This record gives sequence, C-alpha cells and structure tokens, in this order.
Amino acid sequence: MPRIHFQQQLAELKDKILAMAALSQQAVESAVDAYLQRDQGLCQYVRQNETAINTAQRELDEMAYELLSREQPMAIDLRFIVAVIKINGDLERIGDQSVAVARRTRDALAIDHVELPVDFAAMGECTSRMIRSAIQSLLDGDARLADSVREMDDEVDRMNRRAHSDLLTMVQTMPQHTQQAMNGLFVSRSLERIADHASNIATDVIFWIRGADVRHQLSMSMD
Amino acid sequence: MPRIHFQQQLAELKDKILAMAALSQQAVESAVDAYLQRDQGLCQYVRQNETAINTAQRELDEMAYELLSREQPMAIDLRFIVAVIKINGDLERIGDQSVAVARRTRDALAIDHVELPVDFAAMGECTSRMIRSAIQSLLDGDARLADSVREMDDEVDRMNRRAHSDLLTMVQTMPQHTQQAMNGLFVSRSLERIADHASNIATDVIFWIRGADVRHQLSMSMD
Repeated sequence: MPRIHFQQQLAELKDKILAMAALSQQAVESAVDAYLQRDQGLCQYVRQNETAINTAQRELDEMAYELLSREQPMAIDLRFIVAVIKINGDLERIGDQSVAVARRTRDALAIDHVELPVDFAAMGECTSRMIRSAIQSLLDGDARLADSVREMDDEVDRMNRRAHSDLLTMVQTMPQHTQQAMNGLFVSRSLERIADHASNIATDVIFWIRGADVRHQLSMSMD
Repeated sequence: MPRIHFQQQLAELKDKILAMAALSQQAVESAVDAYLQRDQGLCQYVRQNETAINTAQRELDEMAYELLSREQPMAIDLRFIVAVIKINGDLERIGDQSVAVARRTRDALAIDHVELPVDFAAMGECTSRMIRSAIQSLLDGDARLADSVREMDDEVDRMNRRAHSDLLTMVQTMPQHTQQAMNGLFVSRSLERIADHASNIATDVIFWIRGADVRHQLSMSMD
C-alpha cells in the first residue's frame, strides 16, 4: 500500500507543477500583452500574480522535499522529484522576468510612444510555446518534445540578436528615441531569458528521462 | 558506522563541488582576461576548459543522485545534496557564459580595436568575487555571506545597465563603431548573467540553511 500512496503523491506533485507552470505561463503572456497593448492594468496583474507564484513555489518545494525525505524513491522517481525542484526554480524566475517586462512597460508608458522595429508579438508567442512544450514534455515524459524546446531556444536567440541589431540601428538613425529603443532592448532580453528558462526545464526533463535510462542500461549490462 | 561513512561522502561531495567551482571561476577569469588582453590563446583555453567542466558536472550529479538514492538523508543533509545539484547546474552555465565571452573576444579580434566606455575589468572582478563568496558560503554554511552575494548582484546589474547606456551613446555619436559596441554589450550581458548564476547559488545556500532552520524550529514548537 505505501508504494501506491507514493505514486499518488507523485501524481499530486505533477498536478502542482502543472498549476505552477500555468501561473508562470499566464505571467509571461500577460506581461507581453501589457507591453504590446500599453496596458497599465495588466502590468499590475502581473505583479500581483508574482505573489501567487512565490507561494506556489514554496508549497511545491516543501512537498518535493517531504517526498524525498519520507520515501526512498527509486532512480527514476528520484530524478523526477529533483527535476521538479529545479523546474520549480526556473518557473519562479520566469515570473521574475515577467515582472521585469511589466516594469519596462510602466516606464514605456511614461514616455512618448514610438513604433519599434521588433516583432515582440512573435517573440512572445515563440517563448510562450516553449514553456507550454517544456511542461508538456515533463508531464508526458517526452524527451523528444523536450529536445524540440531546446531547438526553439535558438530561434528566440536569433530574434533577440536581430532585435538588438535593429534597435541599435534605430538609435543611430533616430537618437531622439534612444530611451524607447533601450526599453525595447530590455524587453527583448527578458523574453530571451524566459526562453532560456524554458530550455533549462527541457534539459531537466531530458536528464530525468535519459539519465534514468542510462543508469538502467548500466545496471543491466552489469548483471 | 554507515552514518560516519555517509558524512564522509558528504564531505567528498563538498570537495567535488569546490573543484567544479574552481573550474568555473577559472573559466570566467580567463574569459575576462582574454577579452581585456585580446588574447586568442586564452579564448582557446576557455573552450577546452568547458569540456572539463561538463565532465565534472556529470560526475558530481551522479554522486549526488547516488547519495540521495542509497542513503536516507535527514532534512538538512537532504537540502544540502539538492542544493549541490542545483548549484552544479549554475556552475555549468557559468562555464557556458564564459565560452560566450570567449566567442565574442574572437569576433572582436577580427575587427578594428576601439576603446569602449565600459570598465570590464571592474565588472569581471565583481562577478568573480560573487562566485568566490557564493561558494565560500556553501562551504561554511554561511547564510549571511550568501546574502551579501545577492546584494552584490545589484551592483553588477547597475554596471550592466550603465554599460548598455554608455554603449548606446557611443553608437549614436560614433556609428562607425557599432559592431565593437555591440560586442561589448554582449560581453557585459554575459557577465551580468554569470553574476545572476552566482546569485542563484547564494539563494540555494540560503534555502539549504534557513529552510532547514525553519523546519527545525517547526518541529521544536510542535513537541
């Protein structure tokens, strides 16, 4: 019976990390919308949301540590629980970067609006898709989906480099809009960091699944 | 006897994370020196060093997981081992960012040299000190030292913002040096990320120590 109970707790841990991921995802999407639509209300929402994320993070961490200390999880379960702890940290940092975007939006609202030569909607969409896929790969234990997240990270890196380059050109040709360009540059950078965290999550998923596989193969070959 | 053996293994884990930290620290310092001194040879060293870091990371992770699965570590030991796993990931990413600086240095060597309005030596020194203090706080279990690392992160953030702003001014006034400025901008960003990873390490140390403290206090008050 205790093994069954343990499996239930693992399932509960999965549910909790899914809920945490939903909060982080919502934070990113709201922050990008706030920036695109110049929406002060959404900025405030992102900052309130951060409190919920921090609370969820603590609860999730507590539960994962409880499971590690009370049970004797086998290799694959052990790797899963540690992956959840690491992923939890990345999700919390995604929340932090979303707040950074909301802050930049507030700054942007205080100065004249200028159209920037950056497709923030596409960047936001790509980043958001990475988080979704990363968390899906965790839920399904799908290392190939996790691989694809890491490939998407290259795309966001390219978008960020392009944004940097185009914003620098803008600063050269329209120096009067340096502040707005600078703002866009920081938003782009935050999105790229969020993508990095999604990529970290994917890496943890791969390590959880393939690390366990490797260990399994090792113990078989030693039999 | 098994408890004593376990304590020996924990001590060994500490030694290993110290060795890993030394490699990462060396990577940062060599990368900064390579950039400051425009030294192609040092760039190559940083890239070779990365292989050693990746190997050390895998070994350390394996050992930590072995300890988690074979032993039943108590709360504070459990938190220490998980902290080591998380810190290990940050150290490996510090190695990645050092390689990024080395790549930027190689790019900078291919174009005309221009003096940039950024004190990269100071930024590198501050970042390096953060890593040193973060790892010292782990070795000594010193949460106050870890707190100070997080405060230093604000300083590197300020330096990075200042560098961004000054490099943008440079692009406006000397557009012919945009490429060099862009390069400096990316180096500054990598240093800031390295500082972030040092700050993450400090956060894990605090969680390890204070998290355990809180739990200890809780169980005492429930007695």
